[in-house]
This record gives sequence, C-alpha cells and structure tokens, in this order.
Amino acid sequence: MRSFEVTILGSGAALPTANRNPTAQFVKCKNRYILIDCGEGTQVQLRKFKCKLQQIDHILISHLHGDHFFGLVGLLSTMNLLGRSQSVNIYGPEALHKIISNQLEVGGARLEFEINFHPLLGNETKLLFEDKCIEIHTFPLKHRIETNGFLIKEKKMPPSLLGEVFKEDKVPLAAIPFFKRFENFTDDNGKIHEFENYIAASIAPKSYAYCSDTSFLPSIAESCKGATVMYHEATFTEIHKDKAKKTNHSTAIDAAKIGVLCNVKTLFLGHFSARYNDTIIHLEEAKTVFKNVFAVEDGDVIQI
Amino acid sequence: MRSFEVTILGSGAALPTANRNPTAQFVKCKNRYILIDCGEGTQVQLRKFKCKLQQIDHILISHLHGDHFFGLVGLLSTMNLLGRSQSVNIYGPEALHKIISNQLEVGGARLEFEINFHPLLGNETKLLFEDKCIEIHTFPLKHRIETNGFLIKEKKMPPSLLGEVFKEDKVPLAAIPFFKRFENFTDDNGKIHEFENYIAASIAPKSYAYCSDTSFLPSIAESCKGATVMYHEATFTEIHKDKAKKTNHSTAIDAAKIGVLCNVKTLFLGHFSARYNDTIIHLEEAKTVFKNVFAVEDGDVIQI
Repeated sequence: MRSFEVTILGSGAALPTANRNPTAQFVKCKNRYILIDCGEGTQVQLRKFKCKLQQIDHILISHLHGDHFFGLVGLLSTMNLLGRSQSVNIYGPEALHKIISNQLEVGGARLEFEINFHPLLGNETKLLFEDKCIEIHTFPLKHRIETNGFLIKEKKMPPSLLGEVFKEDKVPLAAIPFFKRFENFTDDNGKIHEFENYIAASIAPKSYAYCSDTSFLPSIAESCKGATVMYHEATFTEIHKDKAKKTNHSTAIDAAKIGVLCNVKTLFLGHFSARYNDTIIHLEEAKTVFKNVFAVEDGDVIQI
Repeated sequence: MRSFEVTILGSGAALPTANRNPTAQFVKCKNRYILIDCGEGTQVQLRKFKCKLQQIDHILISHLHGDHFFGLVGLLSTMNLLGRSQSVNIYGPEALHKIISNQLEVGGARLEFEINFHPLLGNETKLLFEDKCIEIHTFPLKHRIETNGFLIKEKKMPPSLLGEVFKEDKVPLAAIPFFKRFENFTDDNGKIHEFENYIAASIAPKSYAYCSDTSFLPSIAESCKGATVMYHEATFTEIHKDKAKKTNHSTAIDAAKIGVLCNVKTLFLGHFSARYNDTIIHLEEAKTVFKNVFAVEDGDVIQI
C-alpha cells in the first residue's frame, strides 16, 4: 500500500444515485488519515471500501450544502458507539459546530471523545495543520455559500544516509551531520568524503488538491501550483454551461483549465450531476484542454 | 399490488451495516403513501426498492435518535431538487422542526414546497390524520427519550352494492339507501327485497402497528389490540436482556409478548443490533411465545 492515496467514497452531486453517493473522500497520507467532506451515507461507504473510520483524525468540511455534510453526525455517533476515546479535529464553517451539538443533544447523546472544532471562514488561505510528516492547507473556492478548498502535502523529508556504503567505506561517524547538510567531510587524515556518495536521492514531496464545489476560479493556482494530483468538480458538460454559471459550479472544461493553470500532473474529475448516465462527454471535453485527466467512480483509489 | 403494504427500507439498529440500513419504512395504504422514520441513507433505499419518494404525503418520525431521522433533511432536499411543489406533512418531536429549518438555512436552501409540521409529545394517544380511507394514530412508547408508536388503519368501507344482481332482479333504485343501512326494502307492490342479497360482504379493515424503539410496554395493547400486522423492535436476544433493560430496548421475547397481548395476526421483528450475524436466535426465542413471527430484511415487502 502506498503511503499517499485517496479513496473516493462518493462521486455524485446533490442527488445521490444507485452508483454515486454524495461527496466524501478518505485520504491516507504518511499514516495520517483524513476525511474530506461527509455526504449522507459516508459511514456505510467507509465500511464498504474497507477504510477504518476510527483512524480518522481530521475531518475537513468544504461547505454546508447537504451533499457535503449530511453524513457527519451519523459518522460521529457511530465512532462513539464503537468506543472511540481519541479526539477528532473537524475543520468547517462555524455553523456546523452548532448543528453537531444540537443534533446530538436532541437525541440525549454525549460523545465519549472530544471534538476539536476549527472554524473556517471560506475566504482564507492558511495552514490548518502540520506535524513532522504532513501539512493541511485551506484556500477559498467560489460557490453560492462560503466554500473551502483543501491541499494536503507531504513534508520534504530530511536526507537519509545510505548506511551500508557508509559502513563499507569506513567513513567516520562525525561525517553524518555534514552529509545531512549536503556538505563534504574532511577526516583527520585530510581525506575528503563526498556527501553525494552517502546520501539517498530525496524524493520530491507530493501533494493533493481538492476543489469542490466551485465555479471557474483561476486564483486556485495561487495555492495549488504544482500539485501532484488535483480533484476538481465537473458537475456539468459544455451543453449545460449556463447552468454551471447560474449555480456556481464548473464544467469539465473549467476544471481542465484549472488543471493547466496549476500545472498539476494528474487531474481527476467528480461531482457529476445525476442527469448524466456516464462521463464520456466530460472526458472528451476536458481532454481538449488537458490530456492527463480521469473521471472518478465511487470506490476508486487514487495513488498519489 | 395489494392496497396495503409495507416496504422495509432499513432493518438495522444504531450501527448501519452492509446489509441493514438504519430504520425507515415505506407504507402504502389505499393509495396513501407514508414514510415511517428516516435513518441515514433512506433516500437511496427508496430508490433501490422502487418506492416513489414524491408520492409520500406523510412522514412520521418516532423519536430523535439519529438512526431514525438523520436521512430526513437529505430526503426533503432531494424532493425539492426533483421539483416537488406539493406540501408534505411531518409528524415528530418539536425539536425536529428547528433542525430541518436550521440545516436548510445554513446551506442557503429554500424549499419550493410547504412543510406542515405536527409536533408530537411522545406521551399522547391520539388520531393524527384521517380521510375517507385511512387513519393514522400515535401512542406512547417507552425509550430513553420521548418516543412515539404509530398505528395505520384502513377505514371500514361503506357496504357496496352488487350491481349486476341488483339490475337483473329489477330492484327499484329507491332501495339503495335502505340496503346501505343494512335494511330490507318494501316496494310499492308490497314485495320485500332483502338487503343481504344485494350487498357485498364487507371486508374487515386492516391495520399496521409500528413499535420502535421501546422497552417492554404492555400498555401498547391499549392502542394496538387486534392489529392485523405489528412491527416491533427486537434489538436483543435473551443473552443480552440486561443490555436491553439498560438501553430501553426490547428482546425478541419482549416483542413476542406484546404480539400476544395485542392479539395481532402476524408479528415482524426488526431493529436488530449489529452484533448479531443473523436472526436465528431472535426467531427461536420469539416462537416460544408467539408462533406467527418473522424477522425482516431490508427490501422485504409485507403484505397486510
């Protein structure tokens, strides 16, 4: 299993269908587990696609349209019933906090774990969380109500020593701090040991950008330039571009243009309106702008 | 298709599983369409089991534990997106009204149809609705929070004339009101026409009683005596009867005893805890008390 992957739990838009649940994604990054959005039925999708719900430490809610959060209180209740004691971080619009507590209260329920709620304003670009391995950022999207995009990034790992070669060549231990600073080391006999021979080529850190729901918004590039993988909503095809404009959604071409502007390696489209039976047109249209584009299905696992 | 049937949309308890959704039932009675409870995922179950969601005129919510109502706002949103204009009646605890409006409000949504909200107190036995064909009653259950049971009844239909025999015998039209009052009619020539020859044997009206969630509560018989079919929760088996007591739920034997007290024709058990892999023990135990008992599965259609 790769250390950075995204499981698509729901790829539909507002109307759930037999094949497409409303939006939710389970992200595993360096053994950190993150849920992005939580449409109705997400807890069942997590079970279906073998994502362990008690591992989730961070829940990011983009905005308060029902297809992005109606499954949240049910998920929290289930975490509680299954004996969770570990706290969970929720990042979302302020009003969500009250919705959660209100719904639990009317049912007479009290969670046995803590919720650390981090309000999002929908107009900020900022770091939400970091530890030694990952970072989670938010950036504004443009929808009918305040909406947040998210960027999850691996951190650049410190260079690692090639232990066996190091031992074989009998390099003094005193060389290590020099090598880790990418400097050569001169030993007591005046011999120069070159760091390049003993340091593993560092792997470029990867990143995942999540953009749903939004109209065409070039400023996304300010936050997501060079993202390894981007998920961008593509609710409509060109024939419905007026509808996209009116509802502050994107067409597949809008999404592809953002992929180009951000110079991402791979673009995934989702949040398809229930009016389409398949995604052939979405892909045909997007490919006229950006070649490396795919349409997601529920259950897809994206390796980053 | 019979004129009185119940589709089980969810037969599980608080924890949904791959096979059992949380509680919801779709009742068709004399072309009236009623939804009882609406756990998370109900709208997808309605679609899966071919129940037309726009036909629903009455939604009955027993209580405010999430597994009985977390699918409601999503269902209302979907009804709206699909163009509903016809009002819907919702019967449930008062706090539900605010939850609905609050969740729609944070999403900037406005329904294009009216909600007629009828608050339930959880301690009343009363008629909620009647028209010429059906009646809907509520009665109290006993759970950790205020909880309502429901009884849906066909009305006794007025006697119907056997038109062909009536014509053949050339009975005067003036006889009809007499026959409908179960009286004989004497014509101008003094001939007596006996009503029994011209009136169809009236079919006894049927009824469906819904009892979930509740601990063992003999007073249910005051409302449900003689119900044709009863659905009663049976969250636990005898080995967990302490747990049933503590959580104000029923065992399969508790449910069977209520079936006996109410003298129902057929008893259906549901709301099974996710800890059981099957319902063999539930049925074995219930049958020691009441013979005509079945365990429901999602998608079952009960003919009444």
